[in-house]
Amino acid sequence: MVMTPEQSPEYPPELSPEEEQYLLSTLKDWSIANGLAVRPAPSFISKEQDPSGVLASTAPVTLFPSLFPRSCFLEGCRIQSAYNELYSAIARDEDWLKSIVEELIGVDDFVSRLWEIHTEVKKEGYAQDLSLGLFRSDYMLHSDPSTTDQGLGLKQVEFNTIASSFGGLSSQVSALHNYLLEIGAYPASSANIIKSDAVQQSSSTSSLAKGLAVAHRAYGKSKGARPLCVLFVVQDPERNVFDQRLLEYALFSEGGIRAFRLPFNRTLENTRLDTDRTLLYTPPHAPSCTYEVTTVYFRAGYSPDDYPKQDDWTARLHLERSRAIKCPSVLTHLAGCKKIQQVLATPHSPHLKRFLPDEERASQVLATFAPIYPLDQSEAGLEARDLATNPESAVRYVLKPQREGGGNNIYRKSIPEFLKKLPQSHWPAYILMEMIEPPPARNAILRNGEVQKGGVICELGVYGVCLWRNGSKEGDKGEILENWEAGYLLRTKGDQSEEGGVAAGFGAVDSCCLLDV
Amino acid sequence: MVMTPEQSPEYPPELSPEEEQYLLSTLKDWSIANGLAVRPAPSFISKEQDPSGVLASTAPVTLFPSLFPRSCFLEGCRIQSAYNELYSAIARDEDWLKSIVEELIGVDDFVSRLWEIHTEVKKEGYAQDLSLGLFRSDYMLHSDPSTTDQGLGLKQVEFNTIASSFGGLSSQVSALHNYLLEIGAYPASSANIIKSDAVQQSSSTSSLAKGLAVAHRAYGKSKGARPLCVLFVVQDPERNVFDQRLLEYALFSEGGIRAFRLPFNRTLENTRLDTDRTLLYTPPHAPSCTYEVTTVYFRAGYSPDDYPKQDDWTARLHLERSRAIKCPSVLTHLAGCKKIQQVLATPHSPHLKRFLPDEERASQVLATFAPIYPLDQSEAGLEARDLATNPESAVRYVLKPQREGGGNNIYRKSIPEFLKKLPQSHWPAYILMEMIEPPPARNAILRNGEVQKGGVICELGVYGVCLWRNGSKEGDKGEILENWEAGYLLRTKGDQSEEGGVAAGFGAVDSCCLLDV
Repeated sequence: MVMTPEQSPEYPPELSPEEEQYLLSTLKDWSIANGLAVRPAPSFISKEQDPSGVLASTAPVTLFPSLFPRSCFLEGCRIQSAYNELYSAIARDEDWLKSIVEELIGVDDFVSRLWEIHTEVKKEGYAQDLSLGLFRSDYMLHSDPSTTDQGLGLKQVEFNTIASSFGGLSSQVSALHNYLLEIGAYPASSANIIKSDAVQQSSSTSSLAKGLAVAHRAYGKSKGARPLCVLFVVQDPERNVFDQRLLEYALFSEGGIRAFRLPFNRTLENTRLDTDRTLLYTPPHAPSCTYEVTTVYFRAGYSPDDYPKQDDWTARLHLERSRAIKCPSVLTHLAGCKKIQQVLATPHSPHLKRFLPDEERASQVLATFAPIYPLDQSEAGLEARDLATNPESAVRYVLKPQREGGGNNIYRKSIPEFLKKLPQSHWPAYILMEMIEPPPARNAILRNGEVQKGGVICELGVYGVCLWRNGSKEGDKGEILENWEAGYLLRTKGDQSEEGGVAAGFGAVDSCCLLDV
Repeated sequence: MVMTPEQSPEYPPELSPEEEQYLLSTLKDWSIANGLAVRPAPSFISKEQDPSGVLASTAPVTLFPSLFPRSCFLEGCRIQSAYNELYSAIARDEDWLKSIVEELIGVDDFVSRLWEIHTEVKKEGYAQDLSLGLFRSDYMLHSDPSTTDQGLGLKQVEFNTIASSFGGLSSQVSALHNYLLEIGAYPASSANIIKSDAVQQSSSTSSLAKGLAVAHRAYGKSKGARPLCVLFVVQDPERNVFDQRLLEYALFSEGGIRAFRLPFNRTLENTRLDTDRTLLYTPPHAPSCTYEVTTVYFRAGYSPDDYPKQDDWTARLHLERSRAIKCPSVLTHLAGCKKIQQVLATPHSPHLKRFLPDEERASQVLATFAPIYPLDQSEAGLEARDLATNPESAVRYVLKPQREGGGNNIYRKSIPEFLKKLPQSHWPAYILMEMIEPPPARNAILRNGEVQKGGVICELGVYGVCLWRNGSKEGDKGEILENWEAGYLLRTKGDQSEEGGVAAGFGAVDSCCLLDV
């Protein structure tokens, strides 16, 4: 296997001080000139020092594209449309979703409240039959002797149904690595590895923007002859703003579609529902101009932290009730629960074929599941409790709550102690997942101006766009209208860290240098 | 006249706090995503805080495009090719240039040393017959009852023959203002002024890059079958690096032409001359790879500050001796002396028609000259000495040294005192120029995160590209091979300041909102 440092001691290539200086100065300038940037962390630049926020920094990036087996990369891209189909089908199967979510009610407050929003809207009936998913399926490489691919296969870490981030920066980082290659900033010694047919350009910015555009157009015309817009519901402040702006600019280039950024906590102030629940947005800067919102794109609202007040829940309900297309709807958001992933991935689970009747596609998806167990009173759950509380077996697992976003997982030997402190009634809020054991790899990361070199762990995310009709009448199960793979993300972190969120401070955006292993 | 605050009290439009917030947040994100950026000043972010230099800031920009009479703007663009022709002709007329420069020898050390370089190279003969000029002619609006254009005409501030900057940022700032217009960030009240056929896009990035590309190709093939490159000779550190990088990227997009940044003080270390004086560049990061330099593009070397050591003069000589095309050659650099501008613009001067035989073109150029006087022993010089030493008349003038770049001028009532302290033998190093009196205008500038509103002064720069043959044999006066107008720059400063260099800390990049006055 070419991926190990033992077998590829030359990767990434060693740089002389002059080579490193050239590569870094080129990288630092190119990144700012091309929006591969973030707002600096308050720990780097304080609010007092830059009160109005004009400073930006190169986003955390790898100096080199990371090696990735071509067959695994292509497999991830190939099965994305099946994943889109799977999660769209789950989001449309309210009864099944209910049976899963009910197990979490009372133990996971966040899931419970999201479900309440759905039931509340259902009472009066949904005003919009279309749903949009901008998904991202995250994988790690896993050594698995059962695959034909020299033991390497993709194993899914999680499936994101809301606020799948880094689509904007991902296109830029692969463009950066390609640029560095083209101008000869990589040493000649790596020319047989880092080459133009290997450094994979991600289409994520334009593909995701096209997804928003397709929903925007599918919404139809304004009944009130109002101007139409897409609403990016965002956190405020947002350090990762350029990632989002790149999508906004691509959407605007693609046929002049207007988008506005709405801080989630200003939803009730700046939007209202018309009599037919048309969502109307009045920009604070243009109070005399009211837009009709075709699509609500959530880049906030995925974490309990986004709902400090009751008003925030009222806001989510308000948006869900509206006639705008939601990306995602509450049901689609819920379909991204770890519990769902666990139910699908519990060994011998019967559920996958319910949603993916095509056997070949189902088996391709199934092959990417790492074993995941519930921590409930079921047979599998009781077995898992033994695994998790025993320090010897726990080291092979990670404990995850339902919600998205890094920083909440409990790893390996910390699990038994964590569970000891948690009332058993709350255990079902977590799922137990076998740790994916990626092959060792090496790279160098530029973060806040510092270069860190060493062992890294890479996570491949494949984006997917899916637009579907939910089915508004009894017996109508809806249908998928658009479904495509939408580029990729590679996120790379030092192998000392166990969390992978770049914005959370532990990793970098990266691109794939494909290897024929 | 529409330009005065009295008559256009609505410009720039007043913004509500919400409008200003929207405009600023849009502007701050767009600028970073599109390279309209600078490295922060050390007074803003210290070297200790960001030792490796990953931070960038929005370049100082105006919030609105500034109003500018369409006819004056078009006139500036129209006459640029005549200006290119004029300065190319001056640079080719060594005898005439010598007669002018000789007056400065002994009083202006910088000019003297540049001239020495020319004479030194001339002894052995120039190895390259082609010269490239990336020029910029700078103007202010001047109230002049003699013009038909409601009293407004362009008066030239200076003509830059070396290191004409801001071509990269200028394209971006006009794109920014157009973007702000398109997304409705400007209030509806200004819709009849800020409109798409008024906000003028500058083509400077692509036009200047095309100029470098044309020279690069005109150089011909490498005799040694070496790879070819363009060399950007730069200051180090350079805060305005993105301005330069944008040209480099455009040059690379335009047919893959490679460019390297060479700090001027590393010239002798990293370049050498082959036996036929071919200029060879060995990048420090790729010591085994030697490039043949087709074109030396000076973004340094224009100021005495760039020559702290004798080695720096040796480096300039070394480059001038080479077979690379210089942008500019030493003679072209010298053609940009204020003294030349003064000789051309001294009332009743006979010199212009020598270089611009076409009467119509000459008269168009002449119309843009503000009166400029020498401070020498000539009749005009003695008259000017009276004007400059008399506090009553001095207030209408500015005293300028020969060299380019802001920060060295003496204004109005400071002139008599300044001259009192200067030995009279050094007076001829300066020229005395009538102050151009631009009509009052208003705008808002974002600088280091602060918005400053109020009266402003605008300076229009028109870029020009000119490639010519100098004429290598006796009696061959050479010829112009390429000549075009290459976009524009608007630089705007608060009217309290009397210097105009944005990078020097007194102004902002801007774009023209054309008015039919």
